[in-house]
Amino acid sequence: MPTFQVPGPVHRLWTTAHEPVLTVGDGDIITFDAVECAAGQLDGFRNGEPVPPLDYDLLYPLVGPVMVDGAEPGDAVELEALEYVPGSWGWTSVLPDFGLLSDDFPDLHVHRWELADGVTVFGGATIPLRPFLGVMGATPDSVEPLSPFPPGHFGGNIDTRDLTVGTSVFLPVSVPGARVMLGDPHAAQGDGEVCGAAIEASLSGAIRVRLHRGRTIPAPQFRTSGPLRPGIEDAGYEATTGVGPDLMAASRDAVRAMIDHLGREYGLDPLDAYVLCSVVVDLKITEVVDQPNWVVAAYLPRSIWR
Amino acid sequence: MPTFQVPGPVHRLWTTAHEPVLTVGDGDIITFDAVECAAGQLDGFRNGEPVPPLDYDLLYPLVGPVMVDGAEPGDAVELEALEYVPGSWGWTSVLPDFGLLSDDFPDLHVHRWELADGVTVFGGATIPLRPFLGVMGATPDSVEPLSPFPPGHFGGNIDTRDLTVGTSVFLPVSVPGARVMLGDPHAAQGDGEVCGAAIEASLSGAIRVRLHRGRTIPAPQFRTSGPLRPGIEDAGYEATTGVGPDLMAASRDAVRAMIDHLGREYGLDPLDAYVLCSVVVDLKITEVVDQPNWVVAAYLPRSIWR
Repeated sequence: MPTFQVPGPVHRLWTTAHEPVLTVGDGDIITFDAVECAAGQLDGFRNGEPVPPLDYDLLYPLVGPVMVDGAEPGDAVELEALEYVPGSWGWTSVLPDFGLLSDDFPDLHVHRWELADGVTVFGGATIPLRPFLGVMGATPDSVEPLSPFPPGHFGGNIDTRDLTVGTSVFLPVSVPGARVMLGDPHAAQGDGEVCGAAIEASLSGAIRVRLHRGRTIPAPQFRTSGPLRPGIEDAGYEATTGVGPDLMAASRDAVRAMIDHLGREYGLDPLDAYVLCSVVVDLKITEVVDQPNWVVAAYLPRSIWR
Repeated sequence: MPTFQVPGPVHRLWTTAHEPVLTVGDGDIITFDAVECAAGQLDGFRNGEPVPPLDYDLLYPLVGPVMVDGAEPGDAVELEALEYVPGSWGWTSVLPDFGLLSDDFPDLHVHRWELADGVTVFGGATIPLRPFLGVMGATPDSVEPLSPFPPGHFGGNIDTRDLTVGTSVFLPVSVPGARVMLGDPHAAQGDGEVCGAAIEASLSGAIRVRLHRGRTIPAPQFRTSGPLRPGIEDAGYEATTGVGPDLMAASRDAVRAMIDHLGREYGLDPLDAYVLCSVVVDLKITEVVDQPNWVVAAYLPRSIWR
């Protein structure tokens, strides 16, 4: 299969004004080096040291845009993750005014992770690495540059943990050539990414690109190749719930209960527990019809305490 | 281990005024016959026939209250599901003004399922049965009778599909003796129960009761004994997403996209697809921090097309 290395990253905003860096055809494979979303600003950081000032205008370096030959609005581009190799370290931040529990955790905090042998160790927990790209998008129809930060119907920063090797994501095409951009590599994340960051770590990757003409979809879709949590859920889960009339509030309650549980059962301080939730705990909507109260559950895999 | 049969069901509302039907101690096992939530009103229904008028004041027959000897407010009662044996048939309803997509599906509809050999067949889909109780609660501190319908911090109608055999649920105790009530048996359900009903089917069950003194929890919690979807997710998933600033709207968008997907790929009409989503599709919050847009995903296990 023809394979092409995508240069970069060179851009970070979503706009049709970018000069394409590469054009590929249906079935081609692209390889790339995705840089963690701080773009090197935390390279020298060590745990316990003061966090260096971050320039937010450098966040989210993306590779692309890659043109998909023949893609037109109304089509879908399929990106099948073939190989993701993370680097040797990563970081997770808790930023002021950001994250699901920003009221509970107002202060800046960064944790550096050492990554080796497919895991990272955090206190008594061994966290399995399951690398994926937080950002996968087909550029929306806008010349005006759009922030890389919020996701949209075009994809972008969708931060969906199951987009690991073996999974195909389908993105709606908004403009001719699709203009695919990729980035924000994560070494591990829970569904929700509750503290606002995953294990942010650069990776080298390979993706097969396919074009599905006339497959019109309203937002990203994906297909996994097998079970979602092999090697993670074998020992079962401990789960907490939030119950109430607002899904966001119920999500917060479920995570707060999990942080309390992690403190009581495993001795984690609240900040460490919040970080652990972000990288390994999954949020599910278990009930959304028994008006007026819904249930959101936070699932902690017990195998991390091995 | 001492084993006691719980008589009934005899009640349906939550109130401390009920006369207890049984008192058990820490470690005792209770057995019971849980009646589907329509309390027999759909017993004679056949697919394609007119749906008989339903008396909503008969819904949710519950067994109990079972007193747990020594339980006090601030404790937790653990209910470990040991055995659930469903009956030979079940039903799923779409009720007017009820369910996640009540605007899209305004009309009354009931589907009857034949249950045998651990599965039920629906068009081309084979749906694995994973029975659990939709209602598990420790009575809240209220003499005034409360509806069995909405769940609360005390539990009740939490409709959480992973409360299958092997799982322990932990309920906060609000009143002396806990006053546990159980019911609303489901033979299968997806996370979310999006059309408003599961495969509603009576079951006979056995549960071990434990008392955890001083374990104060804000809402139900649970612990599973192993992987969540054995025999269900082996062939992977197809998933759709909803992206936007409101988790409820994103949930609706994800399910609408799945209904569209089921129509296009598998030829299901929208109403059948909605029912299928309710009994086998899982809703997850994959991203809840990239303001202002969140992502909810609907996961369809591919193994049902066997």
